[in-house]
Amino acid sequence: MIERTRIADLAALPDGPVSVAGWVETVRDQKKVQFVVLRDESGAAQLVNPATREAEDGDDAAQLALGITNEISGLAHGTFVHVRGTLKHDERVKLGGLEVKVGSLEVISAAIPETPIADDSSLDKRLDWRFLDLRNRKQNLIFRIQTTMEHAFRTYWVERDYIEIHTPKLMASASESRAELFQLEYFETTAYLAQSPQNFKQMAQPAGFGAVFEIADAFRADPSFTSRHATEFTSIDAEFSWVESHQDVMAMHEELLVAGFTAVKEKHGKDIEEVFGFEFVVPTAPFPRVTLAEARKIVADSGYEVVRADGDLDPEGERRVSAWAKEHHGSEFVFVTDYDASIRPYYHMRHADDPTLTNSYDLLFNGAEISTGAQREHRVETLTAQAVEKGLDPEELGWYLDFFRYGVPPHGGFGMGLARVLMLALHEPSIREVTYLFRGPTRLTP
Amino acid sequence: MIERTRIADLAALPDGPVSVAGWVETVRDQKKVQFVVLRDESGAAQLVNPATREAEDGDDAAQLALGITNEISGLAHGTFVHVRGTLKHDERVKLGGLEVKVGSLEVISAAIPETPIADDSSLDKRLDWRFLDLRNRKQNLIFRIQTTMEHAFRTYWVERDYIEIHTPKLMASASESRAELFQLEYFETTAYLAQSPQNFKQMAQPAGFGAVFEIADAFRADPSFTSRHATEFTSIDAEFSWVESHQDVMAMHEELLVAGFTAVKEKHGKDIEEVFGFEFVVPTAPFPRVTLAEARKIVADSGYEVVRADGDLDPEGERRVSAWAKEHHGSEFVFVTDYDASIRPYYHMRHADDPTLTNSYDLLFNGAEISTGAQREHRVETLTAQAVEKGLDPEELGWYLDFFRYGVPPHGGFGMGLARVLMLALHEPSIREVTYLFRGPTRLTP
Repeated sequence: MIERTRIADLAALPDGPVSVAGWVETVRDQKKVQFVVLRDESGAAQLVNPATREAEDGDDAAQLALGITNEISGLAHGTFVHVRGTLKHDERVKLGGLEVKVGSLEVISAAIPETPIADDSSLDKRLDWRFLDLRNRKQNLIFRIQTTMEHAFRTYWVERDYIEIHTPKLMASASESRAELFQLEYFETTAYLAQSPQNFKQMAQPAGFGAVFEIADAFRADPSFTSRHATEFTSIDAEFSWVESHQDVMAMHEELLVAGFTAVKEKHGKDIEEVFGFEFVVPTAPFPRVTLAEARKIVADSGYEVVRADGDLDPEGERRVSAWAKEHHGSEFVFVTDYDASIRPYYHMRHADDPTLTNSYDLLFNGAEISTGAQREHRVETLTAQAVEKGLDPEELGWYLDFFRYGVPPHGGFGMGLARVLMLALHEPSIREVTYLFRGPTRLTP
Repeated sequence: MIERTRIADLAALPDGPVSVAGWVETVRDQKKVQFVVLRDESGAAQLVNPATREAEDGDDAAQLALGITNEISGLAHGTFVHVRGTLKHDERVKLGGLEVKVGSLEVISAAIPETPIADDSSLDKRLDWRFLDLRNRKQNLIFRIQTTMEHAFRTYWVERDYIEIHTPKLMASASESRAELFQLEYFETTAYLAQSPQNFKQMAQPAGFGAVFEIADAFRADPSFTSRHATEFTSIDAEFSWVESHQDVMAMHEELLVAGFTAVKEKHGKDIEEVFGFEFVVPTAPFPRVTLAEARKIVADSGYEVVRADGDLDPEGERRVSAWAKEHHGSEFVFVTDYDASIRPYYHMRHADDPTLTNSYDLLFNGAEISTGAQREHRVETLTAQAVEKGLDPEELGWYLDFFRYGVPPHGGFGMGLARVLMLALHEPSIREVTYLFRGPTRLTP
């Protein structure tokens, strides 16, 4: 490896010789002294170089110094350099209380001087040049937070003996509905891209896996351009056996989120405060729970009329319920439970005493839905009848219905959009900001 | 949750009342006593029930006992039941040294009595009924091992500040080559399924992420039916900055594998010995390294002639090199390095003093290739020239080549097939055995 100290690790070193490597964020080229802000994946530090503007022939030391000065004067923003120099701690330096006096500087990879994006570029323009956009401290932090959160989720599950599965994304039929489905030629037949791992994570239950999780891609040929929809997204999924109702799923779900948010707070709380300007809040379990019927009343009482015929909440309705949970329970999260069967998929279990309602929930977070969960219908006759009622063809679902014919434990689970969680946790306006490379109807590059 | 003790946890409990739940593996219905082997996700235990074959009217206790006896007599293999009873430790019981005397038994989900697969079913037949096939202790263990190994890999990276990325699988052009490419209609244009995250994990380097990893799906429209190819597979990828050569990539790669194998050995070593019948070996770093030129000589010296014109190893050649590493270095792993540029992709960096060779490697494990790694060419002029030399159109690669124009650190990484690692670690004959749901040219279900 090229010898270097990560910039974040400089603070712990004594004054003395160091090597650092990264890209040039700014150059301040004054007559007598040059300052370079050098950034790497861990942070930024100031390089300082006393400028040598001329040197006599034969004065090798001065020639060398002149060379470094000229090199620094010519540095384009974004150029990657490797610098050897002398670390000096100095409280007066605003950037981290230290600076590195340049001894030698090697240009590793020079950047084109014209930068295609600036701080005020539009989101769309920034996404065209995502690899430059991601160089910002904020974007870097977003993906470190993502890493920490996911690892905490997985650790929560692994410690509880969940099995990690990788379900296929190539399917012979639709996993959710015929709408918003990508299809492709697959040798002699047609394949579809999985809209969710629903069928296959359920398969793990008759397979006797007990409890499973997966964090993987899902695909929706969704033509919408909202701030929370993408054609390809990372879905966080869990499914487990022996639940008695959706309440058991919610109990795990909220514990999981507390574990994830706790890890983020511990590792990045200070950085989030500096970069995003707010204190990151770890939620407290249990989260408040309201039925959809109660939620409708909360929305109506707040003076808003949901403009949907099907009884579901709309985005403004979700915001009102979230605001209510924040006001009355001090919670950024709220479960809305017991959705009407008419607006839920056929595989959600219905109430034993009222088949118009389901053992299901949506989880709202800071004003928007981030997840849907449910107990699944595992009795094959009921499941088949519910599929037919929804206009599906049991023949086409045959391989899925088979999962329920050879013994299957009661089970439930949820799917949760990673980008939505991050967007709402960091108060960002769009999932595009928290997705490594966003995919939408008109965005397939870079 | 339905109240139960996981079967693996029974051993630690004192004699007394317990609840267990799982599926019926076998029923031994003797005249005076009935034995049921009940399995759950954690293990199997014997249920015992003194048979009551008749009961007089009015004798409620006897009627109840008769009911249980008849219920057990009628249990189909695979039926899921919930049992309350009395735990008794008894050394004479071969299965775990304990049994549960049945107090009550509730059928939760009855199985169709006809089981479509048996122990001697063909692999293809077993894959048709994968959810039943996975009920075996061996299959269950395979996916627990997978879970442990992946979590150890990710933990290794997370502890070293790698960022986890989720790269898009929908692309506007091929990531590796025009061959073996799935394509689909994408709104007004055409999209391709990513054959690897190569372009996008490299993008993280000019983005200043420093080091990244991803474990995700990759797709190849590969028409072959070998034991180690699939059309969809889980790819383990890492890429990091400031490497000086492929040697730096190999150093991380072998450390990662040691971490993964150590975790598996610690958690599952005993189970592997019981189920697979061999002692699981944790490799020792550094792994032996031979150049491709040396590997060719090793193969030739062993008396085998590789029947390929391009100088690459063939499967038998790989087996010979692996056998050599085992014999001479006691290692199941061996790096074959410095491949000819003619058989490597354009983005592999070439030797400074010999452009016919690359800074690349393959990793062989127990006789087969599991991974390809390399230092990448990061100098855009050289990269473009190498692309043209390989017959690619720099116009089409434009967005990828842009990554290298605005400053980029030297970097390298590898991609590794999860199923291949598991197959070879567990001495299984095919990746189909270690893939949750295999996808091949003629297999798209379940």
